[in-house]
Amino acid sequence: MRLRLALLAAALASLAGPALTALADEGLWTFDHPPVARIQQRYGVAPTPQWLEHVRRACVNFGGGSGAFVSPDGLVITNHHVAMGQLAKMSSREHDYLRDGFFARTRAEERSCPDLELKVLWSLSDVTAQVNAAIDPKAPIERQNEQRKAALAKLADASTKTTKLKTEVVELYNGGQFWLYRYRTWKDVRLVCAPEEQAAFFGGDPDNFSFPRHDLDFAFFRVYENGQPVHPEQWLRWSASGPSENELVFVPGHPGRTSRMRTVAQFEYERDVERPLRIRLQELRLAAYRAYAAQGPEQARQSRSADRGLENNLKRERGFLELLSAPSFLLRKRAEEAALRARVEGDPTLAAAYGGAWDRIAAAERDQRAQGRARTLRDLTRVSRLVDVANGLVRMTAELEKPNTARFREYQDSNLPSQRFQLLSPAPVYSAMEEYVLTTHLQVALDSLGAGDPWVKAALGSRTPQETAHALVSGTALADVAVRRQLLEGGRRAVEASNDPLIVWARALDAPYREQRRWFEDHVESVESLEGGRIARARFALEGTDAYPDATGTLRLSYGRTAGYSQLTTDVPWQTTFYGLYDRSASFANRRPFDLPERVAHAAAKVDLATPLNFVCTNDIVGGSSGSPVIDAKGEMVGIVFDGNIQSFLWTFGYSDEQARCVAVDGRAVIEALRKIYDMGALADEMTNAK
Amino acid sequence: MRLRLALLAAALASLAGPALTALADEGLWTFDHPPVARIQQRYGVAPTPQWLEHVRRACVNFGGGSGAFVSPDGLVITNHHVAMGQLAKMSSREHDYLRDGFFARTRAEERSCPDLELKVLWSLSDVTAQVNAAIDPKAPIERQNEQRKAALAKLADASTKTTKLKTEVVELYNGGQFWLYRYRTWKDVRLVCAPEEQAAFFGGDPDNFSFPRHDLDFAFFRVYENGQPVHPEQWLRWSASGPSENELVFVPGHPGRTSRMRTVAQFEYERDVERPLRIRLQELRLAAYRAYAAQGPEQARQSRSADRGLENNLKRERGFLELLSAPSFLLRKRAEEAALRARVEGDPTLAAAYGGAWDRIAAAERDQRAQGRARTLRDLTRVSRLVDVANGLVRMTAELEKPNTARFREYQDSNLPSQRFQLLSPAPVYSAMEEYVLTTHLQVALDSLGAGDPWVKAALGSRTPQETAHALVSGTALADVAVRRQLLEGGRRAVEASNDPLIVWARALDAPYREQRRWFEDHVESVESLEGGRIARARFALEGTDAYPDATGTLRLSYGRTAGYSQLTTDVPWQTTFYGLYDRSASFANRRPFDLPERVAHAAAKVDLATPLNFVCTNDIVGGSSGSPVIDAKGEMVGIVFDGNIQSFLWTFGYSDEQARCVAVDGRAVIEALRKIYDMGALADEMTNAK
Repeated sequence: MRLRLALLAAALASLAGPALTALADEGLWTFDHPPVARIQQRYGVAPTPQWLEHVRRACVNFGGGSGAFVSPDGLVITNHHVAMGQLAKMSSREHDYLRDGFFARTRAEERSCPDLELKVLWSLSDVTAQVNAAIDPKAPIERQNEQRKAALAKLADASTKTTKLKTEVVELYNGGQFWLYRYRTWKDVRLVCAPEEQAAFFGGDPDNFSFPRHDLDFAFFRVYENGQPVHPEQWLRWSASGPSENELVFVPGHPGRTSRMRTVAQFEYERDVERPLRIRLQELRLAAYRAYAAQGPEQARQSRSADRGLENNLKRERGFLELLSAPSFLLRKRAEEAALRARVEGDPTLAAAYGGAWDRIAAAERDQRAQGRARTLRDLTRVSRLVDVANGLVRMTAELEKPNTARFREYQDSNLPSQRFQLLSPAPVYSAMEEYVLTTHLQVALDSLGAGDPWVKAALGSRTPQETAHALVSGTALADVAVRRQLLEGGRRAVEASNDPLIVWARALDAPYREQRRWFEDHVESVESLEGGRIARARFALEGTDAYPDATGTLRLSYGRTAGYSQLTTDVPWQTTFYGLYDRSASFANRRPFDLPERVAHAAAKVDLATPLNFVCTNDIVGGSSGSPVIDAKGEMVGIVFDGNIQSFLWTFGYSDEQARCVAVDGRAVIEALRKIYDMGALADEMTNAK
Repeated sequence: MRLRLALLAAALASLAGPALTALADEGLWTFDHPPVARIQQRYGVAPTPQWLEHVRRACVNFGGGSGAFVSPDGLVITNHHVAMGQLAKMSSREHDYLRDGFFARTRAEERSCPDLELKVLWSLSDVTAQVNAAIDPKAPIERQNEQRKAALAKLADASTKTTKLKTEVVELYNGGQFWLYRYRTWKDVRLVCAPEEQAAFFGGDPDNFSFPRHDLDFAFFRVYENGQPVHPEQWLRWSASGPSENELVFVPGHPGRTSRMRTVAQFEYERDVERPLRIRLQELRLAAYRAYAAQGPEQARQSRSADRGLENNLKRERGFLELLSAPSFLLRKRAEEAALRARVEGDPTLAAAYGGAWDRIAAAERDQRAQGRARTLRDLTRVSRLVDVANGLVRMTAELEKPNTARFREYQDSNLPSQRFQLLSPAPVYSAMEEYVLTTHLQVALDSLGAGDPWVKAALGSRTPQETAHALVSGTALADVAVRRQLLEGGRRAVEASNDPLIVWARALDAPYREQRRWFEDHVESVESLEGGRIARARFALEGTDAYPDATGTLRLSYGRTAGYSQLTTDVPWQTTFYGLYDRSASFANRRPFDLPERVAHAAAKVDLATPLNFVCTNDIVGGSSGSPVIDAKGEMVGIVFDGNIQSFLWTFGYSDEQARCVAVDGRAVIEALRKIYDMGALADEMTNAK
């Protein structure tokens, strides 16, 4: 499964340095701190405060993905693959919206999503000074961490009470800054349109993370309030002209996680422990889903969305591990870190304040080596929906008994409506599939940790993983939303009284979970945040504050230009056309994953084949940016991000625009497909005619 | 100008070993020794002796390129870029056949080529035993070399007299075998059809040596005898179905030169001296042509063909040098050579007969280091057409005074008609352009060798390179074919009496030329051939004779399968379609070199866009294979080779089918283009209806 990333390893040499020396089109900038001067200098124009607020409030957070309002009637565009989870949950044996697409040609046909909550970043404020003031730097690190968490909880609580907006705490610059981000949220979101998965994901896993590319990776939702479409204050106009080559474009979205400013010790931990284990677990989980899918078409349908997600993650994780493992990578990071430390040590004030930070992080990573594997193996989050529900009910009802600011962050008041919405989701549960993946995870835990491990003992007792999973899944009533609601409303007492085998099991595993989380927060998270914050302050002192923080899944703005690149000895164009889609399909004799859905195949004579389909730009993105609008200097929508090329794997660790590119669907392809392939002209009109 | 061949360097690890351990579809096999058992085992069918003779006699040698008879009326297909030299020579200020294409819609419109001689390998015989019998292995090496050359000349002379066929001596296995190849030849060859260069070479230098590819790189000639089209005994039928994926296909053609069996000392000489110098000379020559072309469109037209050839060679030479310079390459070759030498040393008989061969070659390469640079810089071959003519007249008339077997090989009787044909070519001479390139070469020689170098003194006297070139080119009458004919017919006496400044100059440089050639033949060629032959015999003794020799520009057969490959993390399909051509052009906004000629652009609505255009196969080829037919197991023509992908640069040094591929035009694209783009339906009919 080698990715043959020889070219990537070579490209490591072209990596830009850490964030504070941002080059070219680098940067995942926060909206409070856009690099206006840089953009102005490089492109001769720059966003105004009005432009920034307009864009920020038009951008929609999909929780792990991005999107934007694109009409005054609450229409939201995102990627098909961001919508995929909802499409899968809305599908059934009778209606497979992933395979066949979904097309509401009237408002009445728009279908409510089971558990999609959208949010828009409405306001944000820097609380770094307040948080730092609450921390006693002489206290033991666990104590400092408690002070930090308590201060943040108090600030968030006050914000929620004052603004009535969902407030989230955001830690930037690896602990260098603390912010409150306040969101407007919507839970009545309806599906409007999604192409067939095979049109959205043409080329499948091979073409995923590659370019040239030929995907209609878009989907539309509409946000409702009180049974009516909302009229958002800000939405993006659809560009009539589309992007041009070498044009300045912006990507506002929610990049998930970068590791550009981490220390060498953190990279080594990623390389040696975290990534290999995650890859192994995902491989086994994917194998379990595929074994289940092999039983028949209905099983294949049920597992399709999970399969896609795992396949996508695996390709990325393997790429990251390959990069981390390239000797040139850590050589470079070590040299950079040594240079920074030497500068800190050379200044007595800085040395006193920040000098020990790297060694303390290294010590925490060393501690984590002993614990990290077990912690990951014991973590059942997102393995099984039923287990997530059971754990959620046990943890939430317990936390709710505490004062707001003393709770786990995810159960503080501001987050409760989202938690309830997820717990009570009516999305179907496929018990046989749940049993497969739960069995697999328990088997790996048993094999890796051994039968003597206390968590394994608590999880399995005297049963095999298979017996355990079967007993839990077949015995639980939690697939029934009414049962969940009853337990949630009954609170801690109801949960503790429950005989549901999955609840009983989750209760038994709750104490070890809390113990482990506590250890991690006290020994790792606290050190990474507090010492990471010190390193950030050292950088600010030495290099100024014209910097952007590592990605944290929150709203960022990147800028760049539409541009092709060189690969091997030829040129990769900046765009593809519908001609290319039909070429690639014909070149592979319409063979999976290069087969065309019937609607697309039949439209070959109707579509204007020269219509631009996908394009690339130098905008800095990472996973989570999927669905981000690509907008021009006027703020008009010219495309929608759906991928990066394979070279963009680098961007998790540093920026280079030599070959790495963000990949987007051209807005003109969306309109052409709606009108000529999908008979969705009214939807195209709604965007293109909107005033 | 780095080629970014990181992937290639990585692929070196996948190189097959030397020829005697041929793997998979490896091999440039001679027609007397086809790997029938291998093919049978791998594909379940194999060529019969009748099939082989049919194919051999249908294949046409273009002198540096390949082709084949494809109709009973003497129609020959080759690549546009093989035809390019003739197209350029037939063009004029008024008619630019490179730019506009050439389309003879009747026989009467077919146009005679100025100096195109075609030949077909009619019979061949092994004379190794006779040659070796004539060599006294105890004589000094210069004497052995004379014995070898004399024996070969005598054998060739006898063959020519007996068969009336043009006989050439072929040295195979680096001196391990000697053969006589006898050819039927034709000099009345007429141009029938050639697409626009921009259709044949769509994508230009960037796409050259890459895939996916979208080129109509074909041209048609017709061979005449006594004013009538010849009716060749053997010609290839045009396949109606074209190739399928993973189908066994054969490529018979004339691969130019491989270095798979050379010794490490030879590779080091190539890497350190030969290739870098050739690259530098070609870069300067290309710069000279471009400076000339910049003067205007007519100058650009005149230099276009030379520019293309140099650009193509430079890309390849740079790739070869990059590969030779990769540490992994010589490490591997050294290990292989050490293992072979150890086996030879381990056997007293072999050690006595062959043990010293490597060291003697290494000594010759060391000697050559002192001489090779000067020799290359003093060599004016193919720099200027006028200089070639002058040198040809001086050398040929001098050689003709000697007995046949004592002459330089190229002036032995069998080769005289071809020499005369070239010397008396009516192709236009562009004097101003000649001056540019001759000046450049003389300047490099002066700069590199210094004014004190005897050759430089003889070449320049007291003049500058510019003055010399101007005086020679403006003073000579050799552009006039009648003048050349007069000198040729007048023989040595006429040449010695000539006052033509270029003849005077060539006479002055003749003695140093002969001295230098003599030194090279005695000290390098002789050692490489005689000791190379010993190494070959050692290999035969240890590894058997199921082997193919390094390419020598003579007819070879390779077999393989049509197959895509993986690149980065996605799949490259085995074929492209016309859809892809229009996509790539549109993706680059029809910008050079991705612009479509008008005929092609206008045909977009007429062409069946799903028609396969180009494809790749694993057949072992190198430069010189251009124009080779790709034929199926039935012997039918399914395509025509025109390139290798960038990974196939490896094949000069060893075979791998991981990514390296031969690139061909699909036969169906040729027919589709003739019918739908070029209004040449009758030509398509001639091939597809032929019985």
